[in-house]
Amino acid sequence: MERHFERDLEELKERLLWMGSLAERAAHQAVHAVLEADEKLAQAVLDEENAINELQIEIDDRVVQLLALQQLMAADLRFVMAIARINNELERIGDQAVNIAQSAQRIMRHPRVKPYIDLPRMGDLAEKMVRDSLDSLVRRDVVLARAVLSRDDQVDHLRDQIFRDLLSYMMGDSSVVFSAFELILVAQNLERIADHATNIAEDVIYMVVGSDVRHPALERHNP
Amino acid sequence: MERHFERDLEELKERLLWMGSLAERAAHQAVHAVLEADEKLAQAVLDEENAINELQIEIDDRVVQLLALQQLMAADLRFVMAIARINNELERIGDQAVNIAQSAQRIMRHPRVKPYIDLPRMGDLAEKMVRDSLDSLVRRDVVLARAVLSRDDQVDHLRDQIFRDLLSYMMGDSSVVFSAFELILVAQNLERIADHATNIAEDVIYMVVGSDVRHPALERHNP
Repeated sequence: MERHFERDLEELKERLLWMGSLAERAAHQAVHAVLEADEKLAQAVLDEENAINELQIEIDDRVVQLLALQQLMAADLRFVMAIARINNELERIGDQAVNIAQSAQRIMRHPRVKPYIDLPRMGDLAEKMVRDSLDSLVRRDVVLARAVLSRDDQVDHLRDQIFRDLLSYMMGDSSVVFSAFELILVAQNLERIADHATNIAEDVIYMVVGSDVRHPALERHNP
Repeated sequence: MERHFERDLEELKERLLWMGSLAERAAHQAVHAVLEADEKLAQAVLDEENAINELQIEIDDRVVQLLALQQLMAADLRFVMAIARINNELERIGDQAVNIAQSAQRIMRHPRVKPYIDLPRMGDLAEKMVRDSLDSLVRRDVVLARAVLSRDDQVDHLRDQIFRDLLSYMMGDSSVVFSAFELILVAQNLERIADHATNIAEDVIYMVVGSDVRHPALERHNP
């Protein structure tokens, strides 16, 4: 019985990591579809969406089956609940990747706007946050998870910078308004991907040390 | 024992509905802070954020306690898992309300742009979706939940319309770029609130009839 449970849990974790690798790849391909105006990459992201959605439902089903068959100890329960939440975050990363791929397709239909400012840097940062959040899950590494949290402000700052640059650009030349606007949407989607990575890192910390770090402002309010 | 469980479940549901009413009010106040340039309303939303965040953690703790103490039947398990997910959606509605309230504050610092186009209509629609999704939860009303799902496209359509109108407006007068851009962010946040309401409605359907309606495209792919 115990054995059976361990095996189910291991399988659940493997499926989640597979989902993680799909979401991570989708985000990577979507960003590069924009930066390199690569129609094939954009299409690859759209083609993979269903696989991610199916996996989300499969993982949720496995979670419910596991909870239905076993009376879990607190630590295992935290682990399973964290997996359910991370599953959700990964599916949303996939959604954001789809949004970015669609922006890439629309951008390709317009004359190319000039340099992409800080967008490549923001893309790298967001991708690295996703990768590190998944690595922190694999290794149950709280230090790495906290490093992900610490980078969230950096991403917000980059997004604001990109917004400002693109808005000035739009003010200077009204013919670029539509293309620049698409890049604003891309920056917004990247910021949301970074947010989801942050949520995953918070879930890893919750899973490993059992404390909820989701709303740091609350800690300051209730010292 | 059975009794105890029923009571815990009832309490859990009450706390979730309380959370729902806070999130719904935050969304309502945030939209009206923008439309009426009402600084007090914007501040009220920011002041309530902590209460929503605390409640999210409290509800998650209750879910874990309930699962740890009881070996649940499949239907109860579905109910509890749906509550955990809805809790998450409500917290995100609160986050979006905060974003809108912050936009309201920035908009008030600039000269007012002229009519708000379809924004009031989009606000009403998103609010109604949140309210109906919560009502469908209270009444376990699958028909109402499905009505919420059917309105999601309408919201997307309105958002696209608002984007187009504001972008043309920006192209015609570069002095309104910043204010118009804030309204674009508001429309974006409203669309996300509607998305969360849609997710809640999907969870209600899952809770009541046990079928997963999250990715309708999959059904078409696997007939």
